[in-house]
Amino acid sequence: MKFCSQCGAETKVATPIGDSRLRDICDACGIVHYQNPRIIAGCIPVWDDKVLLCKRAINPRKGYWTLPAGFMEMGETTEQAATRETFEEAQAVVKTEGLYVVFNLPHINQVYTIYRSSLLKPEFSSGVESLETRLFSEQDIPWDELAFETMRLSLQYYFADRVRGQFDFRTTDIIDETHT
Amino acid sequence: MKFCSQCGAETKVATPIGDSRLRDICDACGIVHYQNPRIIAGCIPVWDDKVLLCKRAINPRKGYWTLPAGFMEMGETTEQAATRETFEEAQAVVKTEGLYVVFNLPHINQVYTIYRSSLLKPEFSSGVESLETRLFSEQDIPWDELAFETMRLSLQYYFADRVRGQFDFRTTDIIDETHT
Repeated sequence: MKFCSQCGAETKVATPIGDSRLRDICDACGIVHYQNPRIIAGCIPVWDDKVLLCKRAINPRKGYWTLPAGFMEMGETTEQAATRETFEEAQAVVKTEGLYVVFNLPHINQVYTIYRSSLLKPEFSSGVESLETRLFSEQDIPWDELAFETMRLSLQYYFADRVRGQFDFRTTDIIDETHT
Repeated sequence: MKFCSQCGAETKVATPIGDSRLRDICDACGIVHYQNPRIIAGCIPVWDDKVLLCKRAINPRKGYWTLPAGFMEMGETTEQAATRETFEEAQAVVKTEGLYVVFNLPHINQVYTIYRSSLLKPEFSSGVESLETRLFSEQDIPWDELAFETMRLSLQYYFADRVRGQFDFRTTDIIDETHT
């Protein structure tokens, strides 16, 4: 940030009185511009014993496979964001079955909320951010071509829990991810 | 937003090409300024059979009681944010015992992450944002003087689960909160 979004004056970086962190501050109008982590919401969309993945048409990690997920928008719940992203990226309509994993990625200021979900029907296609969408059995998951560590772990948790017959909610901190 | 935080030019509100939502856009430098929901992280700090609450010294809801909680900062995990806020507001050191509730409040663009936690020792005092800090037994909780619906529900869930002897993770959407 270089300019105040409220008055247009140049901002400076300083610690406000009573605060302990550096912020973008506007001396002209007095506003402190806070920055906060963002939420990414997504789904594990399941049909029979298969999981729907999308091949990314955009960077980062263009050409790699991902679960449908994206930034939560204003006015949404995390569940609404997860199902919207699944429709946008894979044109698939899902019914969620509970929040399954919360990932913290503090080095990139992101929190992921991943939902288990079922496809209402086996219909899907590539949204504008996807090159390809496909249902994968566990043995066909392209583990070496997954876009993000969050997706690798979500799938790993899912298949392990499916064997156990019990899906436990999890929280996982990814402190030093290489695939971002 | 009135001015571009990168170049200082006036912004306009429009839907970018390929997008479906109104955004703050800078025609001068081409940047789209996205806004996203924010995360509030907090704790249910427990000592013996009592819960630590803080009386708010600041608005909103000054003078009302709350669990220690506040906005997650850049570079933190939700758990780190929850324990930091507990220290800042109640000068209390806690050990977390798992993510307990995720609240969605889409009408105010907030997601709460509330952790169960134990005080490491029965020492606490009021941080600058608190007028008073006190341990409450269930029967002494000031139910009519709680600051936020998220706190009322967190406490209600906690005491109900304590009777059952099992603390289940929950997600709750608060669509039309009156106490904000």
